[in-house]
Amino acid sequence: MELEFVEWLKGRLPAHRRLLLGVGDDAAIARLSRPDAVLTTDMLMDGVDFEMTRCQARLVGRKALAVNLSDLAAMAAAPEAALISLALPAAGGLALAKELYEGLLPLAEQFDVAIAGGDTNTWNGPLAISITLIGTAAPERAWRRSGARPGDRILVSGELGGSILGRHFDFTPRVREALDWSSRFQVRAAIDISDGLSLDLYRLCKASGVGALLDLDAIPVSSAARRLSEKEANGRSPLDHALSDGEDFELILVASPDEAESMLAASSQSTTLTCIGQVIETPGLWVDTPQGRQSLTPRGYLHQESIPALSASERNPP
Amino acid sequence: MELEFVEWLKGRLPAHRRLLLGVGDDAAIARLSRPDAVLTTDMLMDGVDFEMTRCQARLVGRKALAVNLSDLAAMAAAPEAALISLALPAAGGLALAKELYEGLLPLAEQFDVAIAGGDTNTWNGPLAISITLIGTAAPERAWRRSGARPGDRILVSGELGGSILGRHFDFTPRVREALDWSSRFQVRAAIDISDGLSLDLYRLCKASGVGALLDLDAIPVSSAARRLSEKEANGRSPLDHALSDGEDFELILVASPDEAESMLAASSQSTTLTCIGQVIETPGLWVDTPQGRQSLTPRGYLHQESIPALSASERNPP
Repeated sequence: MELEFVEWLKGRLPAHRRLLLGVGDDAAIARLSRPDAVLTTDMLMDGVDFEMTRCQARLVGRKALAVNLSDLAAMAAAPEAALISLALPAAGGLALAKELYEGLLPLAEQFDVAIAGGDTNTWNGPLAISITLIGTAAPERAWRRSGARPGDRILVSGELGGSILGRHFDFTPRVREALDWSSRFQVRAAIDISDGLSLDLYRLCKASGVGALLDLDAIPVSSAARRLSEKEANGRSPLDHALSDGEDFELILVASPDEAESMLAASSQSTTLTCIGQVIETPGLWVDTPQGRQSLTPRGYLHQESIPALSASERNPP
Repeated sequence: MELEFVEWLKGRLPAHRRLLLGVGDDAAIARLSRPDAVLTTDMLMDGVDFEMTRCQARLVGRKALAVNLSDLAAMAAAPEAALISLALPAAGGLALAKELYEGLLPLAEQFDVAIAGGDTNTWNGPLAISITLIGTAAPERAWRRSGARPGDRILVSGELGGSILGRHFDFTPRVREALDWSSRFQVRAAIDISDGLSLDLYRLCKASGVGALLDLDAIPVSSAARRLSEKEANGRSPLDHALSDGEDFELILVASPDEAESMLAASSQSTTLTCIGQVIETPGLWVDTPQGRQSLTPRGYLHQESIPALSASERNPP
């Protein structure tokens, strides 16, 4: 199958100015904008990240690229080239591969990503799609998780929760916004929300050696989170969904109070930024209540097994 | 599992001067030697590329990196960074992941490859390991499949055939040799032998718009090919194995007669080069016999479905 598919793909892929040599040789050659390569890879798997019997292959292909784009957005890196590996079920593999590509190619075009190659295989197993995305950034300007300092403000883009109702498939990764913000503001730390606001904020805090005091009333709850709360009638509030649903693919950004003020003032209608709290010295996530400061357990929608066990200082008010 | 594994990996991975930011953030940052990135990706799958019940995980991990290194060797590119995605069976996934890394890390060190990241997942499916390798080369010096011209000589490195007896797991990709040869000689076209000498030579010829006249007596047949021929007693000669067994991971190099002469003269005992024929105008593979010039059908060990259908000019003597 591979030969036929490679021929189809060579015809389907647009030429890209960055590709000095495209698909069809032992490797591709891409001229990056700079030698500082920002590298990420994500694999989506049938039965884990999606259910092939219940969704469209195009959406799966699109999402496989989009989650990688979101990782680059969290670094304020400009995407440049992608490589795509497919493990396809033997039955209908070729048609499935084409659908996956048809789903991801428009997104690649939208974000000027050169498709530099791939490896397309069939087997007696479920679908897996692995994409490696290569971007570039000036290393001193790339955002990391580790730069947050006590007193900094915590901002989030967009609205959170309820992504499972549809947004997890059709979200637009915040690449353009990240590049814009990074060119205009000093962002001290960033992460994208892939596993849930509270869990990913906890990770950022951990990497920075700090904690976060959250203003729960300020958290931007999506209408999907409200709908999900009503629909499921399972006792989880819309806020709960916003705190712990995965796959928002929004950004958490940390900046000094002054810089955060400027960012909020410049925040447009289409990509709202909201201040949801501030960085504090005490590790862990915290909320102030009439009963005093209380610990908030980070929870995530995906990968329940990766939820951290809190240390005593993260559990008990100082 | 991912959190525990990432912690293990962070401790296990050596620091690398090229990594400005390593495993643990949304993406890694690698400073490449130049902005011209040579990109390749290969996925190995249980039941297709290996049988997990019949081999060691370390060898699988090593091979997954080695096949990518061989692709870069075929471009005369220097390997710089790798990303590793794993789809692990749920039972024993963590131990398996560690074994895979223990197998590939020594090879990464041997070829100075920085492990820049990965994505480690478990599922109810078989093992798949997908590696993307990033190298660099001056674009004008990188070898391609397409530069062979009539009159050029066809060289191969090493000895061919019978790789299935062991070499397919422990071969050393010809990265060092390729970089050395590319710095000293003008190689016009190159490809690595992944699917069999005749099939990969056919691909090189096809990409160059030429054909090849082979000297069958000159083809370096490995002792493994001889052992396999004796052992299987299936009527396939050692030469047949050398022509069509996959996974030799040697290089086919094409150079002008003078340049080929210099390369052969410089060929050392450890990485012998052998001239096995010459490039001709007529497409296809050919051998001269007492009955005249005859067409040789390209055949490969892997991916039988990708064996090309010959055109009339490739089948019939001119």
